[in-house]
Amino acid sequence: MSINTFGHLFRVTTWGESHGPALGATVDGCPPGVPISAEALQGWLNKRKPGQNKYTTQRREADEVEILSGVFEGLSTGTPIQLMIRNTDQRSKDYGEIAEKFRPGHADITYYQKYGIRDYRGGGRSSARETAARVAAGGVARAALAALVPDLTITGYMVQMGEKHIDRSRFDLAQIAQNPFWVPDAVAAEDWAIYLDDLRKSGSSVGAAIEVVASGTPAGLGAPIYAKLDTDLAAAMMSINAVKGVEIGEGMNVATLTGEANADEITMGPDGPVYNSNHAGGILGGISTGQDVVVRFAVKPTSSILTPRRTITRAGEETEIVTKGRHDPCVGIRAVPVAEAMMACVILDHLLLHRGQVGEAPRVQFR
Amino acid sequence: MSINTFGHLFRVTTWGESHGPALGATVDGCPPGVPISAEALQGWLNKRKPGQNKYTTQRREADEVEILSGVFEGLSTGTPIQLMIRNTDQRSKDYGEIAEKFRPGHADITYYQKYGIRDYRGGGRSSARETAARVAAGGVARAALAALVPDLTITGYMVQMGEKHIDRSRFDLAQIAQNPFWVPDAVAAEDWAIYLDDLRKSGSSVGAAIEVVASGTPAGLGAPIYAKLDTDLAAAMMSINAVKGVEIGEGMNVATLTGEANADEITMGPDGPVYNSNHAGGILGGISTGQDVVVRFAVKPTSSILTPRRTITRAGEETEIVTKGRHDPCVGIRAVPVAEAMMACVILDHLLLHRGQVGEAPRVQFR
Amino acid sequence: MSINTFGHLFRVTTWGESHGPALGATVDGCPPGVPISAEALQGWLNKRKPGQNKYTTQRREADEVEILSGVFEGLSTGTPIQLMIRNTDQRSKDYGEIAEKFRPGHADITYYQKYGIRDYRGGGRSSARETAARVAAGGVARAALAALVPDLTITGYMVQMGEKHIDRSRFDLAQIAQNPFWVPDAVAAEDWAIYLDDLRKSGSSVGAAIEVVASGTPAGLGAPIYAKLDTDLAAAMMSINAVKGVEIGEGMNVATLTGEANADEITMGPDGPVYNSNHAGGILGGISTGQDVVVRFAVKPTSSILTPRRTITRAGEETEIVTKGRHDPCVGIRAVPVAEAMMACVILDHLLLHRGQVGEAPRVQFR
Amino acid sequence: MSINTFGHLFRVTTWGESHGPALGATVDGCPPGVPISAEALQGWLNKRKPGQNKYTTQRREADEVEILSGVFEGLSTGTPIQLMIRNTDQRSKDYGEIAEKFRPGHADITYYQKYGIRDYRGGGRSSARETAARVAAGGVARAALAALVPDLTITGYMVQMGEKHIDRSRFDLAQIAQNPFWVPDAVAAEDWAIYLDDLRKSGSSVGAAIEVVASGTPAGLGAPIYAKLDTDLAAAMMSINAVKGVEIGEGMNVATLTGEANADEITMGPDGPVYNSNHAGGILGGISTGQDVVVRFAVKPTSSILTPRRTITRAGEETEIVTKGRHDPCVGIRAVPVAEAMMACVILDHLLLHRGQVGEAPRVQFR
Repeated sequence: MSINTFGHLFRVTTWGESHGPALGATVDGCPPGVPISAEALQGWLNKRKPGQNKYTTQRREADEVEILSGVFEGLSTGTPIQLMIRNTDQRSKDYGEIAEKFRPGHADITYYQKYGIRDYRGGGRSSARETAARVAAGGVARAALAALVPDLTITGYMVQMGEKHIDRSRFDLAQIAQNPFWVPDAVAAEDWAIYLDDLRKSGSSVGAAIEVVASGTPAGLGAPIYAKLDTDLAAAMMSINAVKGVEIGEGMNVATLTGEANADEITMGPDGPVYNSNHAGGILGGISTGQDVVVRFAVKPTSSILTPRRTITRAGEETEIVTKGRHDPCVGIRAVPVAEAMMACVILDHLLLHRGQVGEAPRVQFR
Repeated sequence: MSINTFGHLFRVTTWGESHGPALGATVDGCPPGVPISAEALQGWLNKRKPGQNKYTTQRREADEVEILSGVFEGLSTGTPIQLMIRNTDQRSKDYGEIAEKFRPGHADITYYQKYGIRDYRGGGRSSARETAARVAAGGVARAALAALVPDLTITGYMVQMGEKHIDRSRFDLAQIAQNPFWVPDAVAAEDWAIYLDDLRKSGSSVGAAIEVVASGTPAGLGAPIYAKLDTDLAAAMMSINAVKGVEIGEGMNVATLTGEANADEITMGPDGPVYNSNHAGGILGGISTGQDVVVRFAVKPTSSILTPRRTITRAGEETEIVTKGRHDPCVGIRAVPVAEAMMACVILDHLLLHRGQVGEAPRVQFR
Repeated sequence: MSINTFGHLFRVTTWGESHGPALGATVDGCPPGVPISAEALQGWLNKRKPGQNKYTTQRREADEVEILSGVFEGLSTGTPIQLMIRNTDQRSKDYGEIAEKFRPGHADITYYQKYGIRDYRGGGRSSARETAARVAAGGVARAALAALVPDLTITGYMVQMGEKHIDRSRFDLAQIAQNPFWVPDAVAAEDWAIYLDDLRKSGSSVGAAIEVVASGTPAGLGAPIYAKLDTDLAAAMMSINAVKGVEIGEGMNVATLTGEANADEITMGPDGPVYNSNHAGGILGGISTGQDVVVRFAVKPTSSILTPRRTITRAGEETEIVTKGRHDPCVGIRAVPVAEAMMACVILDHLLLHRGQVGEAPRVQFR
Repeated sequence: MSINTFGHLFRVTTWGESHGPALGATVDGCPPGVPISAEALQGWLNKRKPGQNKYTTQRREADEVEILSGVFEGLSTGTPIQLMIRNTDQRSKDYGEIAEKFRPGHADITYYQKYGIRDYRGGGRSSARETAARVAAGGVARAALAALVPDLTITGYMVQMGEKHIDRSRFDLAQIAQNPFWVPDAVAAEDWAIYLDDLRKSGSSVGAAIEVVASGTPAGLGAPIYAKLDTDLAAAMMSINAVKGVEIGEGMNVATLTGEANADEITMGPDGPVYNSNHAGGILGGISTGQDVVVRFAVKPTSSILTPRRTITRAGEETEIVTKGRHDPCVGIRAVPVAEAMMACVILDHLLLHRGQVGEAPRVQFR
């Protein structure tokens, strides 16, 4: 990862601020010959788009993506793909106060400390709006993956919102698209709706946990030791705004386990090794096993709330702040499509990296 | 991060296998004029060295580090510093069986799937032995930090082993060096000794959680958006063998919090902003606040255990495996100095990166 | 350098094709607080703009640059600066034939061989049109250099066109902007005008050599051994379309010299070392000496000519090709502002890199 | 290229000083399964080894290479290969004077200006001794190329020494190994021997030009626009000590040509396109055509000569310097195997990069 760029061979550079004229992603390293269309990318962007229901910020952005380069007659050419999204609903007047005061728990103060200057409008570069560019880039990655590994699926969903967890016994993938929370649990979806509505009305916010699963990931991806698949996934998820923790498979809970409990025993199936469990989250020694790759991460509550909090001004004077504006009561909801996009980018990147380093020679046969 | 290298300006490449002739680190980007001695590096290596007590592997390695380049008359010259550690106690005969069978929960199988060839002796490149090179490199980073930010301290310690947690009300930094577990809690140290001794005798193993704190980190470090300080720390910790989860500050628990609870309120102190809490773990928007930087991670139990586990052979036949050899009942113990070393490398790297990108111009004044 | 990106800390990624909707540069790593305006960038772009006189392609492009991000209230913020230039005068119909036939000496065939698909319109990504993005990025570099090293000047000019060389005894910097060839020699300017006019009318083209000088470059820039200042300059110039040779200082002629003739003797001046000559072109061991940094490079003649040349079609049939369209009789002319831009980017990059690696501590005093 | 590392997927980091305990190369990214032996590497090193005849420095180094990692049972494993060469004949006393005085034309002064400290013994890091590490790494690259592209050959030879050029009409590859100058011209070899012997006796030195040709390079290698094959070759050659100019194909002479003269016409052969000439040096648009890749570069004369030259001391006092020690009268001779090694590394790197970016899918068919 290099400042505003991530990836080794599939390299994504995002650019743009919340209230500037536009934002986007410069996508370098998409293999040639992949079908890419603005329509397909738009489908992914629409999942993340704000203002779609009362649980996300009421900012209304078309989030319309333009492909400015790298695609010719509907196919990628191997040259950089520039994806641009114009900002249309900035309403800069909403943000007058935060030019002077720093929101506790927000990047306002650290950007100022680092650079001595900041675009305070809507959080500038630190706004979650930047993640629209990631979703667009993730759409390109998905298109390339569809061509290279047709069986691969990447699915994200919420597993926790505040104190509320999903019930894994009710887990149902089909539910995810049926509710505004991307929750694979119909009962939870109803319960959470009431809970979040109350929070929203009181001007509060709450954290969340999201899980993303890549099924059909080929074995052998991941470049030990400092570009391990889990290392790169951890970095990718931690780079998403407001994320404070990342887990692979068993995650932090692994600290409680014994060696016997943690071992994913191996048997032999018709197509290769079969694991009897997946504590490892599909990654051993930083390399994929061929099982589901499972990543989980926690998103903190939005710092923009109606309850007054103590803070200081740019001049160093103590004061209080209340953030009115338009904000997400649970920013974790919109992190779901963002995390899926990051997962797609990382897996594609490692697929290309493996191909470069090792080749596409016949996979190891166990025989 | 680039395969076997990490860092932007302070770049560390580790090399070497568990049972090869030697291993080491190529350290590029240490500023010139920093006092570096083999003796000082040896001090850090001795913390990680195996065979020091009954709780770590009985392999006996001198872990003696040689400085082969980059230091002249006791000072770094700005050229690459090569650190080499000869392997001396390999006993390859201990590892006969694992040439044929894959240990469940171990990288044996994935290295084989990726490369079609693996140095199975002692786990080859995937062995925790590689972390000796990180500790040596971390010693160089510490020396440079001592010159550039004399007040900075980096301290790691265990906070959990299996079901056992430290009691934060008894937290005492002075205890850390007084017990073989690097536990800041004298009561826990005694309790854990009994617990782990039992586990060890039964040939089992257990997971652990470690916390590392950097006090005195200057505000402003971290390069948003894809080389955030927390992104790089997450990658650094996840790259350590057996790590399955990483947390910054409040970590995964942030999912349960409301915006009110999570906000670290800001007041004004004589030297700048003062925060009334540190849920953020010293990082906002990927940039350090000047508070303690707090990272936590979980290490899975060693997969080398005496209880038979089902597995397959290289030929794809189902079998069972019992790993005798010499192993750590709780590999998390030796992860403590490794994590400190990674923290030192990451913070130095970001200090240099900030200096390059923004300069050493007067820090922002709040006035 | 990483595919479509160059630079270590000041990183420029260009994107876009000759006949796509737009092209541009994603500029990451500009220090914060630098005054940046579209007007200032436009000034540099206008130097490179086609269609300004009969000696360059008659394609008429406004080459109007839009700043889409990274600048707030006229100052850089330290976040990526996106520079976009819309294509307006594409006339794709002019390029019908080259969809099927490969121009000898052109990248048509190799892009096809590499990617299996190519945007043939106007040369697609391989068009010299891409260099507009470099000039825009160079404008940002110039603005940052003006803030950091006010005395630095970067000046490019032609020294050869076909068999015609400038006469160094008539060298006059003031002449450069007075003629369409950027020639520092008034007599040559007149002579070359006649020569090139003839060539143009006959539908031929010719090569050229350009020299770029950076005066006021601080001593100490350059990161040996693989990011030497001359290494990076050589790569930067060689990356410009049609360049086939790069020289530093004495260049290829150094092969003829003895050690006595080549030594730039050193004496002591009031402000530091004074060199009695500059065979080295201001760089020793890959590090700047403080003298003028002198780079020279040769540009081949445009492959688009009216004389029929033998070639093959996409189907592998032998044929002939004549390129009508709109082309530069001497593409070297427009390489002058491009090379200046590359020089500005490389020097700024090395200034930041040096600051990061070594710091801004007092320069070495010779005393 | 990143400071002391070059390459994208095949990454070589060199380390070590002329008079330190050892030097070497950390080679990351060699594909797995490649036969690597110390003996084979030694063969390449012996070509570069000093003290073999009276035309190179009389320093006697065994240049014995040890493989410390990354090779198991004679095959590469895909993990970093550490190559170490112990220094044995340092004689630091020879270099007393250069601790205080800067040799004109040498990196002594710039290393001091950059870092404020330098290992002056034998030139420290700036010594041509560093190139031994490149040759060792190049041996690894050759082994991988032999496995991946068996028909590829890489051959370097001198084409000029001072005013003396080879006669291309007498060009004979078989001669190269028959004389101490790697000259493909038996008559020149005899003539140059007398010429250089005189120079050597007078304590002078002279420059040289070297040409390196890669025959059998597949079409399609090179990653436009900033990792073009010629860009990376130019950087690789310019990074070699004392190089001041680099040319591809026609090189600087291209400035004199017309479009008609420069066009390499294309016809159709049984296996694909056939070019009627090779002005392009096998590279168009930064991508290989399948023809011979031809690179030429000029090496300046050693700055260590017996004729007194004016210079200054570390204290800024004016003085004269005469360099006795052991030096090469024409350092260009030993640059031949170094350049071959760099060519091998760059071509392997681009082969892997192409495989990662585009895949090994059937080559484009012209039909």
